[in-house]
Amino acid sequence: MTTTTHETQIVADPDVPLVRITREFDAPPSKVFRAHTDPELVVQWLGPRGLEMRIDHYDCRTGGSYRYVHSDANGEYGFRGTFHEVRPDELIVQTFTFEGMPDGVALEKLVLEDVGDGRTRLTVTSLVDSFADRDAMIASGMEVGIVQGYERLDEVLAR
Amino acid sequence: MTTTTHETQIVADPDVPLVRITREFDAPPSKVFRAHTDPELVVQWLGPRGLEMRIDHYDCRTGGSYRYVHSDANGEYGFRGTFHEVRPDELIVQTFTFEGMPDGVALEKLVLEDVGDGRTRLTVTSLVDSFADRDAMIASGMEVGIVQGYERLDEVLAR
Repeated sequence: MTTTTHETQIVADPDVPLVRITREFDAPPSKVFRAHTDPELVVQWLGPRGLEMRIDHYDCRTGGSYRYVHSDANGEYGFRGTFHEVRPDELIVQTFTFEGMPDGVALEKLVLEDVGDGRTRLTVTSLVDSFADRDAMIASGMEVGIVQGYERLDEVLAR
Repeated sequence: MTTTTHETQIVADPDVPLVRITREFDAPPSKVFRAHTDPELVVQWLGPRGLEMRIDHYDCRTGGSYRYVHSDANGEYGFRGTFHEVRPDELIVQTFTFEGMPDGVALEKLVLEDVGDGRTRLTVTSLVDSFADRDAMIASGMEVGIVQGYERLDEVLAR
């Protein structure tokens, strides 16, 4: 059996203000895609453990938009954006803003690749317009949320 | 009377893959904003002279989307994207794709500043994820379309 890489790689690009996240999943692209686009599945895994997630709207189609709220004992954290392009089982291009920093916006691309044996490699890039903002995004603890979120996604995909 | 700068400045950022366009207009922010958001006005100025413009849809509000087609004797050129945020008289954040290069996407911010005397300074930044794509965008002749488009916008604003 081929070794599966469940490690989440998070790399700060040296040339442009972009973060690149790579992760493999034991499920085919169609299933990983659906877990990113069906709000009833998204709400089960997006974000770190220990937060409640409430979806305001999640209209994941080309030209659609989304908003969701994470909450814990300290308060609520809203996130929103638009879906620039949604190409089934292959690609999602979306914008992303944390409402606590309303002037910050990232352009995100999620690329799904079939790597055989019913597995998928997901590559997510998040582009902002300055290295300072990119480095602040990494320093803010995004890694914990991403790693834990993908562990929860593994569990959703295994059901 | 203060001197008005109608020159269009187009600058390639040295640090990030971004183009910054700066232009002043002899109209207040509310009027320049409306000329960017009302499709009946947009169709009168967006793009170079000598092209026909047809708007497929132009739903310029936070979470909306747009598509338009330029055409000339050589064919049709489609453009589309989403409006991540629309803040009246101040800010438009949108995505932009030329359908002839469907995998290319830019994140654009349009900032309107009141510079007094009924004038507005417009700053547009266009961010992509590689310097090669940014430089290709500049080399493609974007300057002609932008300079001529803003001359046409001057005419719309003067009516």
